[in-house]
Amino acid sequence: MLGSTYKGQACSAARALELVGERWSLLILRDAMFRDYTRFLQFQKSLGIAPNVLTTRLEGFVAAGLMKRRVPKGSSEPPEYVLTRKGMELKPVIIALTQWGDKWVRPGPVEYIDGRNSRPVAIQLRRTTDGAPVPVDDVVVRKR
Amino acid sequence: MLGSTYKGQACSAARALELVGERWSLLILRDAMFRDYTRFLQFQKSLGIAPNVLTTRLEGFVAAGLMKRRVPKGSSEPPEYVLTRKGMELKPVIIALTQWGDKWVRPGPVEYIDGRNSRPVAIQLRRTTDGAPVPVDDVVVRKR
Repeated sequence: MLGSTYKGQACSAARALELVGERWSLLILRDAMFRDYTRFLQFQKSLGIAPNVLTTRLEGFVAAGLMKRRVPKGSSEPPEYVLTRKGMELKPVIIALTQWGDKWVRPGPVEYIDGRNSRPVAIQLRRTTDGAPVPVDDVVVRKR
Repeated sequence: MLGSTYKGQACSAARALELVGERWSLLILRDAMFRDYTRFLQFQKSLGIAPNVLTTRLEGFVAAGLMKRRVPKGSSEPPEYVLTRKGMELKPVIIALTQWGDKWVRPGPVEYIDGRNSRPVAIQLRRTTDGAPVPVDDVVVRKR
């Protein structure tokens, strides 16, 4: 588990942020998801973070089940940190942040595509019953 | 602007996290989006954050254009912090975090619905060309 806790916050967004809400966490995961980085030095070079912070984040991800630590067999190569399915499924969070930043801050250097056919991909709000798009203003919460 | 900066990170997710990546930020926005909270004491009671941190966050949101500060006319009531469109459009980020937490940590107490007909709503990855769903593993990035 990582450091942040949001006590008394029952909601799942708070639970998620306890695992990925620390400074740098989501950018490390972005590099793992979309640049296929696995090694300490790759993340460090990309992000320029203090080594002790990066170590804490990577080991925290392992403890939280977002990454697996893999030691290359019989070699002196450094360990690799590989995303698990749990980690990989945070992609929509990164994409939602990117889409918002592209629109409201400034367009960034990359776009998300379907790797099978190179067509652009976006995060959308849809009704699960019939797949109809739902405008952001119409989404509300209710207790289960 | 808020405190975090991710220098040298061109991507829009980093830009977005500079505005909403501080501790508590996304939970304050969640309360504003989905509980219609606008007043300092509502956020404070909901989250139990230190008042100085809450003040810094709310004023930071105003500076970043995510909220507007509104002072009720001719009354002694406290100011209200009201989401702008820029702030409201972060809903997909909160929903993506919640969906992930529901699946991978534990089911939370609320679900998102279309307020017009009470049907469940989810974040989905779709091709923008034809609306086809895209599995998370198939989403990759490319330079614009």
